[in-house]
Amino acid sequence: MYSFKNDYSEGAHPKILNTLLETNQEQDEGYGLDRYSKKAIERIKEKIGSENADIHFISGGTQTNIIAISAFLRPHEAAIAVSSGHILGHETGAIEATGHKILSVEGKDGKLSPSDLQGVLDIHPDEHMVKPKLVYISNSTEIGSIYSKSELQELHNFCQRNQLILYMDGARLGSALCSEENDLQLSDLPTLVDAFYIGGTKNGALIGEALVICRESLKEDFRYHIKQKGALLAKGRLMGIQFLELFRDNLFFDLAIHANKLAGRIRNELEKANVKFLTHSPSNQIFPILLNAVITELQTKYAFHIWEKVDSDSSAIRLVTSWATKEGEVNSLIADLKKLL
Amino acid sequence: MYSFKNDYSEGAHPKILNTLLETNQEQDEGYGLDRYSKKAIERIKEKIGSENADIHFISGGTQTNIIAISAFLRPHEAAIAVSSGHILGHETGAIEATGHKILSVEGKDGKLSPSDLQGVLDIHPDEHMVKPKLVYISNSTEIGSIYSKSELQELHNFCQRNQLILYMDGARLGSALCSEENDLQLSDLPTLVDAFYIGGTKNGALIGEALVICRESLKEDFRYHIKQKGALLAKGRLMGIQFLELFRDNLFFDLAIHANKLAGRIRNELEKANVKFLTHSPSNQIFPILLNAVITELQTKYAFHIWEKVDSDSSAIRLVTSWATKEGEVNSLIADLKKLL
Amino acid sequence: MYSFKNDYSEGAHPKILNTLLETNQEQDEGYGLDRYSKKAIERIKEKIGSENADIHFISGGTQTNIIAISAFLRPHEAAIAVSSGHILGHETGAIEATGHKILSVEGKDGKLSPSDLQGVLDIHPDEHMVKPKLVYISNSTEIGSIYSKSELQELHNFCQRNQLILYMDGARLGSALCSEENDLQLSDLPTLVDAFYIGGTKNGALIGEALVICRESLKEDFRYHIKQKGALLAKGRLMGIQFLELFRDNLFFDLAIHANKLAGRIRNELEKANVKFLTHSPSNQIFPILLNAVITELQTKYAFHIWEKVDSDSSAIRLVTSWATKEGEVNSLIADLKKLL
Amino acid sequence: MYSFKNDYSEGAHPKILNTLLETNQEQDEGYGLDRYSKKAIERIKEKIGSENADIHFISGGTQTNIIAISAFLRPHEAAIAVSSGHILGHETGAIEATGHKILSVEGKDGKLSPSDLQGVLDIHPDEHMVKPKLVYISNSTEIGSIYSKSELQELHNFCQRNQLILYMDGARLGSALCSEENDLQLSDLPTLVDAFYIGGTKNGALIGEALVICRESLKEDFRYHIKQKGALLAKGRLMGIQFLELFRDNLFFDLAIHANKLAGRIRNELEKANVKFLTHSPSNQIFPILLNAVITELQTKYAFHIWEKVDSDSSAIRLVTSWATKEGEVNSLIADLKKLL
Repeated sequence: MYSFKNDYSEGAHPKILNTLLETNQEQDEGYGLDRYSKKAIERIKEKIGSENADIHFISGGTQTNIIAISAFLRPHEAAIAVSSGHILGHETGAIEATGHKILSVEGKDGKLSPSDLQGVLDIHPDEHMVKPKLVYISNSTEIGSIYSKSELQELHNFCQRNQLILYMDGARLGSALCSEENDLQLSDLPTLVDAFYIGGTKNGALIGEALVICRESLKEDFRYHIKQKGALLAKGRLMGIQFLELFRDNLFFDLAIHANKLAGRIRNELEKANVKFLTHSPSNQIFPILLNAVITELQTKYAFHIWEKVDSDSSAIRLVTSWATKEGEVNSLIADLKKLL
Repeated sequence: MYSFKNDYSEGAHPKILNTLLETNQEQDEGYGLDRYSKKAIERIKEKIGSENADIHFISGGTQTNIIAISAFLRPHEAAIAVSSGHILGHETGAIEATGHKILSVEGKDGKLSPSDLQGVLDIHPDEHMVKPKLVYISNSTEIGSIYSKSELQELHNFCQRNQLILYMDGARLGSALCSEENDLQLSDLPTLVDAFYIGGTKNGALIGEALVICRESLKEDFRYHIKQKGALLAKGRLMGIQFLELFRDNLFFDLAIHANKLAGRIRNELEKANVKFLTHSPSNQIFPILLNAVITELQTKYAFHIWEKVDSDSSAIRLVTSWATKEGEVNSLIADLKKLL
Repeated sequence: MYSFKNDYSEGAHPKILNTLLETNQEQDEGYGLDRYSKKAIERIKEKIGSENADIHFISGGTQTNIIAISAFLRPHEAAIAVSSGHILGHETGAIEATGHKILSVEGKDGKLSPSDLQGVLDIHPDEHMVKPKLVYISNSTEIGSIYSKSELQELHNFCQRNQLILYMDGARLGSALCSEENDLQLSDLPTLVDAFYIGGTKNGALIGEALVICRESLKEDFRYHIKQKGALLAKGRLMGIQFLELFRDNLFFDLAIHANKLAGRIRNELEKANVKFLTHSPSNQIFPILLNAVITELQTKYAFHIWEKVDSDSSAIRLVTSWATKEGEVNSLIADLKKLL
Repeated sequence: MYSFKNDYSEGAHPKILNTLLETNQEQDEGYGLDRYSKKAIERIKEKIGSENADIHFISGGTQTNIIAISAFLRPHEAAIAVSSGHILGHETGAIEATGHKILSVEGKDGKLSPSDLQGVLDIHPDEHMVKPKLVYISNSTEIGSIYSKSELQELHNFCQRNQLILYMDGARLGSALCSEENDLQLSDLPTLVDAFYIGGTKNGALIGEALVICRESLKEDFRYHIKQKGALLAKGRLMGIQFLELFRDNLFFDLAIHANKLAGRIRNELEKANVKFLTHSPSNQIFPILLNAVITELQTKYAFHIWEKVDSDSSAIRLVTSWATKEGEVNSLIADLKKLL
């Protein structure tokens, strides 16, 4: 049974494992102060075109969100997120566990707009309510949509005007930036958001996300927060080496392109067959709506998540491709689907 | 410059990396539900001789302490630790950050005794003070000492009588259990402590500790706590595979024996040369007291921590060996020391 | 300008102040262990018909909610509240500040039903989400509605079946229980909810709510939680004396009847004049919908909150009566309103 | 049995109760925005000689410490307190419950000095430890000693040089400032500390402390923190009226002088009788060392705390006087003591 359930079913890209092997016996500093982490940070700074950014490697997405958001906010300040935001419903209240409320906004296509934010500010006038302070967005979003440069620019401008912090969850940033519909570049981010992270776990690494802090005032003492949350790995080289490989050349982007290409192929074939989709997603996650009978049949050969019920006869499923997805399996899936439709 | 600074300067044991390589392309479940994590848990249950223990893999020691202690305690309850305890001074207030006070006790040789605990209970009679509830010990301790079976039995009995939770930090449990002076067995622990962890990071793994929860009442919903703290790794297989290798046969113990043997050799040679030690440590950390002039000379060829000033002319240094320490380097160190003494 | 803004604009009922005066010079124990607090607890136990309830006096409603909810829940557990719930939008994230998420439900008329709760449980299946555990309701609600005995019985049964804790915020419990439409008795509560509080601040006291804990498992060590949150007043007698007066005879109910009677009179007169209301509220808060021109005129003589915009020409205002509201002022308000309508 | 156990055994000074009575029926704004709170703030600003200070009334000392310290610190920052400090041992871990570690220092006579602070800074060099940030002192201290102006000036200078926040717990500030040995004035404090509170509860009020924030950067959004901790009382007038009375003229100081005078009388008489004291305390708390037999006899007529065992035959007791202590009872106590000595 081949799985399209997610983009973290396999290990890491072979190049990464090879470097782990080659460097294994070398002695180096602990806690992220090793030469590989330092080199990786330099490479990322070049790629994002920002010498002044602070970069920290953290094991996973929820961990990164916890540390960044709790470090950026004061006790009475809250985060704003779209209702489908990962921190709202899929992190076991991790942000609230650090003391901060998350204000949920309906949004559109899994994305936030200035008018959504204005609506939140309007109903939080004084000290009887939390103070909205950080805007959490993800790119690509939980439902596969992506932010255009102009959409992000508008959010940036609104946040600047209203003293809000704009934070981007980039668990699937690679897929977003490599989408055919994308007009953003990695080097645009330091000027458009206050902090963001580059997801490694879902794009070829064993573990690790690279948090990039762009706004000066958010950088101070950051390693204290990582350590206090138990996330300062003794063998930080493990993450340094992975990111060094991902950004030594263009591996990070090549892997995302592979994932997007295969997801796009499935999407195109299904569109030709007039299959409808729950949402427009030009990234590595797609949500076709299929008859329940078809889904049941498909489940005998492939693993995937049933995302939500659409009507009594049909449901939307989630198909996810990754850097490791095999072209042959995608072709089989398409062929099988065509037979069933 | 060869380093005796710590036991996490190198990568992982080759067997572990090989298995990571061999299994790399296999698809498997995420979040620790993969077949390797499950097998590793079974193997550990056999080694500790307890079918009913709950076992969870967590990336590092501080992370494990945070999750376990905050999950085990209610808001008004406190932990008790010896003054040199890792959670007290070297985790950036991580436990307090979860809301819990740590009560510091002087102790002896880095260890706690029932009389130390009684002293704490005596001065915490009512609701104007925290309620002492969890006893934190580490084996081996921060200063290399180890608990004898009878010492641990006495702590266990006292905790039972006083409704206290006994928790053992096992970051260096391998070294403790493989010490020539040790009379404890891994399979004794489930009956002597309520929870403990088996340290992987400092004994041959890239990352990972295996938390073992023995007391029934502490097991409920534990995965919620791991996730809420951001520690449920998407690719949990990374830890499962490592612990499977460490406990497939006796690798975990073989590595600790290697580290202890080399530390013991240095200790013996220094003792012959009448060097005094800050503390008696029959494990992989030793603390010889040397003249500052000797230390300065030694620093030109070896890296290590200066632990504390002893008097105007001499200081205690910390020498740590590990699974990866090279016998040849130990011999050179000994030879160089003899010349200097 | 007379105020109908809220039910805490005046001081305390004279009987309360007189007793404060009479007992002022007596020496007594601190921290709520004084004879008055003890007597007050006994009187309340008689009134609620439960010898086994644990009763604690706490300065205000938000403080009580914070202490009770954070004491009742484990770190990964969440509260469920109706979208208009006070803890959700009007306590500055106080519950989240203790680490717990609040799950918002639309509800109906400011109230929750078993189907609302079932909906929440359905979408919280595993450790990737918080664990819904405590059901927060208020009676009367933020919009003046009240729970019938059968509605509460159904919630109770659902919570029992699903291991949920049912907690009632009684900031305006007096008004709810004295509503003409009410069929609940104070003595019904210990068998229908796990914990609730009797609001003093909004019903004639200077400060103080009486938290009543009915479920055995929620009582342990509760005074530790009060102290840890800074709410164990040195001169607890201040609250004991107030509640003793409120419950010595029927003062608590008499005051609520007075408030309800006057609110009812306004409501009846406005209904006669065909004024519509935002919601049906048989308690001391009413929400008539008036033309904006009428509201502007009214504001020249009376203080009140404009609750929400209804359409371009009209808005709903909130009129609140209390134990201290003067009958004459109510008559003037009615007369002025009639002129304006 | 007359009590010398503490300074909160009685109610409030009659002047305060009278004003509560006189103003009881007036309608006013809630949450501390009433005219009495505003007037009280103006009066206190005059007394401390600082127009720019921010002043907030909070119900009690622990509550004030919780709100101030958690608002002033970032998550990784810690407080420093002398080992006898109230926040360390007598607030049920309230500060830790907000996430902050308290670093304990031995100190001298219940007081901290720059060298104590330097010692803490020296052993907290990096992100593996908390970052010491706030210095907590109390005046008078838990053992009745007071800070001289020069001692406070030195602490102030040290804190300025090391970017530390100096916070003074003034639960018994009245007694400290009215001590015969005191050379500090209330108006010195705004220039010597960053924040402090003026204790009302232990100096004639029913409840209430006045937190004074002097440093500009600590003032922002402070009311959010008060509300979030459940301490923004609906009827804030209760505290405003009390502080208005305490500072309308010199009532606050007159009451402290009364308490000190009676404690001084006991101290002098005991000194004449060659009784030794545990510590030098020129305020309203004294700690004479008496034979256990004498203590037992004394307990038949007076209530007081036995502070600590001194040797097998004798112990130190704590005698506390207050604004309400009766001169006649003090004379009886002295007479009885003389008989027993």
